[in-house]
Amino acid sequence: MTERTDPIAVFDSGVGGLTVLHECLVSLPHEDFVYFGDTARFPYGDRTPEQLRSFALEIADHLVARGAKALVVACNSATSAALTELDTTYGRHLPVVTVVRPESRLAAQTTTNNQVGLLATSATVASGAYERALHEVAPDARLHAVACPALTPLIQEGREIDDHVVELVDEYCAPLKAEGVDTVILGCTHYPLVRPIIQRSLGRGIKLVSSGEAIAEDLSARLAAGGLANDDDRRGSYRFLCSGDTGAFAKLATRYHQLPLGQVDQVDVATAVRKPNGVAA
Amino acid sequence: MTERTDPIAVFDSGVGGLTVLHECLVSLPHEDFVYFGDTARFPYGDRTPEQLRSFALEIADHLVARGAKALVVACNSATSAALTELDTTYGRHLPVVTVVRPESRLAAQTTTNNQVGLLATSATVASGAYERALHEVAPDARLHAVACPALTPLIQEGREIDDHVVELVDEYCAPLKAEGVDTVILGCTHYPLVRPIIQRSLGRGIKLVSSGEAIAEDLSARLAAGGLANDDDRRGSYRFLCSGDTGAFAKLATRYHQLPLGQVDQVDVATAVRKPNGVAA
Repeated sequence: MTERTDPIAVFDSGVGGLTVLHECLVSLPHEDFVYFGDTARFPYGDRTPEQLRSFALEIADHLVARGAKALVVACNSATSAALTELDTTYGRHLPVVTVVRPESRLAAQTTTNNQVGLLATSATVASGAYERALHEVAPDARLHAVACPALTPLIQEGREIDDHVVELVDEYCAPLKAEGVDTVILGCTHYPLVRPIIQRSLGRGIKLVSSGEAIAEDLSARLAAGGLANDDDRRGSYRFLCSGDTGAFAKLATRYHQLPLGQVDQVDVATAVRKPNGVAA
Repeated sequence: MTERTDPIAVFDSGVGGLTVLHECLVSLPHEDFVYFGDTARFPYGDRTPEQLRSFALEIADHLVARGAKALVVACNSATSAALTELDTTYGRHLPVVTVVRPESRLAAQTTTNNQVGLLATSATVASGAYERALHEVAPDARLHAVACPALTPLIQEGREIDDHVVELVDEYCAPLKAEGVDTVILGCTHYPLVRPIIQRSLGRGIKLVSSGEAIAEDLSARLAAGGLANDDDRRGSYRFLCSGDTGAFAKLATRYHQLPLGQVDQVDVATAVRKPNGVAA
C-alpha cells in the first residue's frame, strides 16, 4: 500500500528528467523524491517500442517495489511507447504522471496560428504520440515534427557547449521556421538544458513549451485528490539512483541540477523480477 | 560616433551579468555583444558609493572607447551608486540601459498585496535605489529589503552547490516570508543562477522578479528608436573581457553560460585615462 509519507519516484533515460524533477522540487518542497536515470541503457531515442515498454515497466516495478506513492515518467521516448501499459499496470495503484499530454495541452493554449512545431527523439516522433495528444486538445492544430537524433546524446555527454551544438540546433530548427510555427514543443526532457540555444535559433517570437511546471502542477493536484500529500510544513529530501556509473552520473547531474546533489546509488533494474500481474516481487 | 554595426557593451562585477547577457542574446540574436566582468575587483557588494562610481565610469569609458553603440549596466551595486553619473556622462551619446528600474516596474506589475521583498547586496540595499524606483511606479507598495552579503561571493566562487548555500538562502528568505511578501526582486544579477534554491525556499506562491528579459526589451526598443539596430537577418557574435584571470573567468562562465563561450581576453580598465569631459582617451 502506498503511504502519504512515501517518496515520489521520477525516471528518465538519463539526466533530462532533472528538468522535470527541478520543477517538482520547487513546487513541492515538502515532498520526498527518488530519481532514477537509466544511464546504462541510454540513449532511448533509437530503441524499438517493445524495448521501451520493457524498460519502462522494469523501472516502474523497481521503483514501486522500493516504495513510491506516485510515478512521474520524465522521459518522452518511454512515455510515447509505454503510456498505455504504465497506466494499465500502475494507474489503479498510484498516480502515474507522464510527459506528452501536458506539453500538448500547453502548446494548444499557446499557439495562435495553429502551427505547432515539435523537436523530439526519433522514437518519439515515430510513435505519433504528440499528433494524437495535440489532436485531442486542438483538432485544428497542425503538428510539424522534427526528429533530432544527435541532440539528446550530445547533451547527455555533458561536454562544453560549442559551435557544433549551435549548428545542429540551427539545422533542426530551420524546417520549423520555414513552416511558420509560432509554438515549439521541447519533446525531450533533455532539451530545456539547451533552451537558450534553441530560443536564440528560433527567435523570441516563437514560444517554447516544455513539461516541467505542468507536470509539477498535475502531480500536486493528483496527490491532493488522492489524500497523498505530505505535511506541508516539512522540508522534503531527494536522492538519485542510476543503472550506470554513479561517478559519471554525479558529475553530470551536478552540472545540470541547480540544487545540492547528495546521494547517488547504483541499481540494476534489469534483475528485478516482474510477476505476471505486473507488480514487482 | 556610434555606428549601428558596433557591438553592445554589457558589464558586471563578475559573472552575474551573464544572466542579463543571456536574455539579450536570445532576444537580439542579430546584434554583436562585448561582455566585461570586473573580476579583479570583485566583489562590489561591500564597496563604497564613491568606489562604485569610479569603477563604473572607468569601465564605461573603456568600453565606449573600444566602440559600443549601447551600454548595459548588468550590476545592481554599480547601478545603485552610479546611475546618475552614467546617465549624465553617456546618456546623450548612446542608450544606457541599467538594472533596478526594470525589476521595480515588473515587481509593481506583479504584486497584488503591495508587499514586495528585495534580496540584494549590502551596497544596493544601503543605496535606497530600489525604494526610490519602486515608489516612483507604485507609491502604495512597501519594500522589505534583505542584504545578503555572503550570497554573491559564494555564487562567483563557482563551487558545487551544497547544503550551506541552501541554509544561507533559507536564512535570507525567512524575514521576507514572515512579512508576507507576494513578490521578491532578485536584486543582484548573480541570483538568477541559484533561482531554484530561492524559489524552493520561498515556495511557488511567491513570484520572483529579475531583470534579464525586461532589459532585453528595453534595449531592443532603445536601439529601434535610435535607428541603431543591426540588420536582423545576420547572426551576431559575442566575446568576453575581464580584468582578472581569463582562465578562471572562462571556467566559471562555461559553467553558467548556456551558449558556446568563445574568446576571453584580459583588460586592465583602471589604466584607461579619463578626460575631464568623461569621454575616454
